[in-house]
Amino acid sequence: MALHPDRLLPIEPEARAIARELYAGVKDLPIVSPHGHTEPRWYAENEAFPDPVSLFVRPDHYIFRMLYSQGISLEALGVPDRQGVVHNTDNRAIWRLFAEHWYLFRATPSRFWFEHSLETLFGVSERLGPDNADAIYDTIAAALETPAFRPRALYERFNIEAISTTDGALDPLPWHDQIKASGWKGRVLPAYRPDAVIDPERDAASFPERLAQLCDLAGTPVSWAGYLEAHRIRRAYFIARGATSTDHGHPTARTADLPRDEAAALFDRVLGGNGTSADAELFRAQMLTEMARMSLDDGLVMQIHPGSFRSHSPGLFAAYGPDKGADIPTATDYVRALKPLLDAVGTDPRLTLILFTLDETAYSRELAPLAGVYPALRLGPAWWFFDSPEGMRRFRETTTETAGFYNTVGFNDDTRAFLSIPARHDMSRRVDCGYLARLVADHRLELEEAHEVARDLAYNLVKQAYRI
Amino acid sequence: MALHPDRLLPIEPEARAIARELYAGVKDLPIVSPHGHTEPRWYAENEAFPDPVSLFVRPDHYIFRMLYSQGISLEALGVPDRQGVVHNTDNRAIWRLFAEHWYLFRATPSRFWFEHSLETLFGVSERLGPDNADAIYDTIAAALETPAFRPRALYERFNIEAISTTDGALDPLPWHDQIKASGWKGRVLPAYRPDAVIDPERDAASFPERLAQLCDLAGTPVSWAGYLEAHRIRRAYFIARGATSTDHGHPTARTADLPRDEAAALFDRVLGGNGTSADAELFRAQMLTEMARMSLDDGLVMQIHPGSFRSHSPGLFAAYGPDKGADIPTATDYVRALKPLLDAVGTDPRLTLILFTLDETAYSRELAPLAGVYPALRLGPAWWFFDSPEGMRRFRETTTETAGFYNTVGFNDDTRAFLSIPARHDMSRRVDCGYLARLVADHRLELEEAHEVARDLAYNLVKQAYRI
Amino acid sequence: MALHPDRLLPIEPEARAIARELYAGVKDLPIVSPHGHTEPRWYAENEAFPDPVSLFVRPDHYIFRMLYSQGISLEALGVPDRQGVVHNTDNRAIWRLFAEHWYLFRATPSRFWFEHSLETLFGVSERLGPDNADAIYDTIAAALETPAFRPRALYERFNIEAISTTDGALDPLPWHDQIKASGWKGRVLPAYRPDAVIDPERDAASFPERLAQLCDLAGTPVSWAGYLEAHRIRRAYFIARGATSTDHGHPTARTADLPRDEAAALFDRVLGGNGTSADAELFRAQMLTEMARMSLDDGLVMQIHPGSFRSHSPGLFAAYGPDKGADIPTATDYVRALKPLLDAVGTDPRLTLILFTLDETAYSRELAPLAGVYPALRLGPAWWFFDSPEGMRRFRETTTETAGFYNTVGFNDDTRAFLSIPARHDMSRRVDCGYLARLVADHRLELEEAHEVARDLAYNLVKQAYRI
Repeated sequence: MALHPDRLLPIEPEARAIARELYAGVKDLPIVSPHGHTEPRWYAENEAFPDPVSLFVRPDHYIFRMLYSQGISLEALGVPDRQGVVHNTDNRAIWRLFAEHWYLFRATPSRFWFEHSLETLFGVSERLGPDNADAIYDTIAAALETPAFRPRALYERFNIEAISTTDGALDPLPWHDQIKASGWKGRVLPAYRPDAVIDPERDAASFPERLAQLCDLAGTPVSWAGYLEAHRIRRAYFIARGATSTDHGHPTARTADLPRDEAAALFDRVLGGNGTSADAELFRAQMLTEMARMSLDDGLVMQIHPGSFRSHSPGLFAAYGPDKGADIPTATDYVRALKPLLDAVGTDPRLTLILFTLDETAYSRELAPLAGVYPALRLGPAWWFFDSPEGMRRFRETTTETAGFYNTVGFNDDTRAFLSIPARHDMSRRVDCGYLARLVADHRLELEEAHEVARDLAYNLVKQAYRI
Repeated sequence: MALHPDRLLPIEPEARAIARELYAGVKDLPIVSPHGHTEPRWYAENEAFPDPVSLFVRPDHYIFRMLYSQGISLEALGVPDRQGVVHNTDNRAIWRLFAEHWYLFRATPSRFWFEHSLETLFGVSERLGPDNADAIYDTIAAALETPAFRPRALYERFNIEAISTTDGALDPLPWHDQIKASGWKGRVLPAYRPDAVIDPERDAASFPERLAQLCDLAGTPVSWAGYLEAHRIRRAYFIARGATSTDHGHPTARTADLPRDEAAALFDRVLGGNGTSADAELFRAQMLTEMARMSLDDGLVMQIHPGSFRSHSPGLFAAYGPDKGADIPTATDYVRALKPLLDAVGTDPRLTLILFTLDETAYSRELAPLAGVYPALRLGPAWWFFDSPEGMRRFRETTTETAGFYNTVGFNDDTRAFLSIPARHDMSRRVDCGYLARLVADHRLELEEAHEVARDLAYNLVKQAYRI
Repeated sequence: MALHPDRLLPIEPEARAIARELYAGVKDLPIVSPHGHTEPRWYAENEAFPDPVSLFVRPDHYIFRMLYSQGISLEALGVPDRQGVVHNTDNRAIWRLFAEHWYLFRATPSRFWFEHSLETLFGVSERLGPDNADAIYDTIAAALETPAFRPRALYERFNIEAISTTDGALDPLPWHDQIKASGWKGRVLPAYRPDAVIDPERDAASFPERLAQLCDLAGTPVSWAGYLEAHRIRRAYFIARGATSTDHGHPTARTADLPRDEAAALFDRVLGGNGTSADAELFRAQMLTEMARMSLDDGLVMQIHPGSFRSHSPGLFAAYGPDKGADIPTATDYVRALKPLLDAVGTDPRLTLILFTLDETAYSRELAPLAGVYPALRLGPAWWFFDSPEGMRRFRETTTETAGFYNTVGFNDDTRAFLSIPARHDMSRRVDCGYLARLVADHRLELEEAHEVARDLAYNLVKQAYRI
């Protein structure tokens, strides 16, 4: 092993030569990361990351879900159970188990990300395996203790210009304040993710309590009007700390635009805890439209990440809790689901609403046609299961001809795996340059245009779309 | 810029060489255009086309929807409002606005079509942009005034062998008569498109009136039997003027085959204007089967274009009316929807029913398997949002292995943009030759066979399928 | 014609060279055929196959459906009607009709399979056509009379290591016994396919009778408990004759896990013949979960082949019966449908449940994510309409990045066309090597890894997954 300079570039020599040239023009552009899940605390406290397993295995559902799918228990992998208890703390043994099964990741994006980190950060140019597992563990462990591997040093080394975290509506954002107060020049922006105070089915028992908490935080009455006002106040609080966006992870893309009294009655039902499942769906739907209206007022860019059936396995959930790799995409409708919101605000170019999907069939059938006409709509990049070379290629091939490049918004790494961020952006830049190179090679685009588009996809569009 | 002779051909040198050879064998074949939306009046009156904006911007929803999606108002683009009023008549300013945003069309089919027209018709080999907008405007405007740019001259220059228009069932077809009477040798065929007298939800208020009008035109009573007879009479009227096909643009592909008395009762309900939305869907469904039965009698080839959610944005519709780029595809079922019609007439090889889709997932899952067994079924080419290089490639890759080439029907340009017709057929021929070349290069097809198939796809199949 | 050694390998020279090398490493590996429809009687009796038409045309719905779709009647092709009567017995005339229309199969997998057989088995290196139809007929007919073309000789010549048949639950498996008793070393394994005693809608009138027959065979009472026990006993009977798998061809992937008393009541309803269509669906659903539980006990690998709308054309069915090429795929949900079964047993790594699909959209959206986390799940190869070069390529491109290679199970030929078996495995090996070669060429995989994966896909995974 040793990362090949042409990895992921087109195979055809002519296209590869063009792709190389395009890639050379974007590979060193700063990283703008407008959506992700790194911890603001890391940048605030700037502590060393712990051992290799805690960094690469335990928190990464891409990694442990594959191992689990092949019969290795999460217990053996030291994944914390639902109560946070780790039943296997022998990190070295876990690492060996991981190394022994590293072949399972052939041709997956995890392989690309991990090996990119290994070589560029830790200088390891060998393929992980049973024979070198211990040596590689030691190399990583030693490096993690050095100042160069502290979060802020890595932020700088990664050439990050700005990075967004994802933060609950109730979060007081102390770490963001602490970062600001520290005088460090890194830009760590919060993003307003109000799912927990919008989705009555998320931890249903404590939902009314969270609504009360939100209104309490904002100093508003616990009523429909007070609840909306509380969101406005919390959004302003986030904006004051650098937020430029909101994010909404709903089971479906459904939106609604109810008359005020119906919305108020619906609020009362979900607040009282006696709403039905249909009420919950309708409340989520209504709130997307409310959030869009607030965005028109305060300028926050809105993101919708719909269509994940969360925690599909009740057994896995009972033992290990959420986010354990058992979130499964579902077929998603956008055409009818988004209509109420779009009817209300979709033709207003002051709004930016970024759509993601886990249902690739929607790219060419629904999302590109919608984004290709509504001034408020933009397409988020290939997401989650499709944040991969083939996934990214399909995204471009199925959206560009209808929506063009300029209704897309650059790349999201969407990760809590901090060390993988450069690798993820690098993959995206390589795949986009490969796509552009093929357009140049068959004369759909001229080279100088492709250079411009490559820079737009890697850097300009994300700043513009996310107002960073 | 300057159109590259190899544009859209495969990148691999061997496949490209084969594709070049295949393309050389089909590029000059006559154009047969069996489905489209050019105006018969053009050919009848043979007047000059007006200015560049009226030709390229104002009427082309591919163009203005993209500009609109990026925040440019339709008003600014001089798109006529719902009452037909143009609020910006400064064509030169509109052209400059268009030129300034031409980069938005990178990698879209509009770009290919427009540049093909620019160079081959107007001799302009520069990329449109702010710097040359005025000069290009002047070049086009000057050309349009010359006799060579009159509709009939262009028809001949484009090497069109026959072109079909699309005409309402109530249309007296005066222009087609006038063309015939003129002695001009161009073949401009009407096509019977009865949506307005079949779909109770299209301009619902005046639907009963239109039914009465249809029966009146045909001299039949306004009853279920009279209504069907009126269709037969109008079809004969169209056939007498050269029609070889009907066309049906329904929201879904649903068909029905009701007992006569139920159908008659349904007719009475929709005629009385008190049918439900379910009645409307059922009436459309029933009429597809009736139309298929009439086709068995009179030989008209039948086309179904389902699955477009028309005028998705009520705001846009209220201000600018239909066909403003806000028609969005929806997921479409064919397997259950077409069954009643297929049960009735699908195994009769005398019928030709051509299916289109805006839901690409149906190609390999439903449409190719259906067309690969039912003698009456053929697959229309990649349509609308998929009338593009990647769309056409996916069409071949997902239908050929199951349905073969000979259950497809060649190319449709389906356009009202007359000047783009050669470009559209050229794109199709290039993409098909590229597909065939790859089959030759990996030894799935022999070269001489590929030559034959290329000619079939470009010329023979369309004549045979559409009986032209 | 003459089969090109590089057929189906990548076009790019570098990737082709790699693919050649990979293919050289797997092309001669033994064939393991874990799922198919050859007749055990063939191997037991070892009689000569009859004439070319009975071998290549009459029984192959890939062949006659295409001819039928182009207006050739099944009668003319000598396809037996529903009563088994063949109306055209002039085999030579049928063969000429076939030869005349052989061009219809261009770029289809049937073409590849047939020409592979023609050349490798019969030494015919000319393309079939009207001119050589008789000569080729004679060559095949003569060969079929020789000992080298008896089933056992072909089995050995094909280098088959083991082949599974598909057998009804009521089948006494006499041929499998006879094969064993004969001392022949070929491994012909039965597979337990209980659809006829699980699906109340299959030949509905005689379903209760079949249930009684099953219980009678097993010596159990005709009750819910007795019925389940009868399945266990029949499975053991199959296992004793070499079975390693069950197979379930349901209209949908729906599963259920009812409380015992509800399941018993449901059984009574379907046994009494007064169940609704919903009951039938629920019974099939419940039985998938019951079968999975039995697999946990007896180790049979479970296969689900859902989503085919069988015998779509009632006219064709009335005249010619089932399996006449009119089975059409439908959109299939897996995420909700499989949940009851997965909730019950999906996290148990002792179970192997192999999923197939006729809805390609499920690969990346549902199947790869599900197989990428549930220890019990594996992905069957591209099936039926997708058992083709492009279909296989899409399968790898849309599943590998999420589920990896090791949650897939190698290749199934799934055929009753015995002579096509080597061709089908060869196609799969070529396409997989091509896919791997591209991964090597763009540096996603190293060559030595690709060699290992190629062998796993061609040989090791199928043995492991099917426990052969």
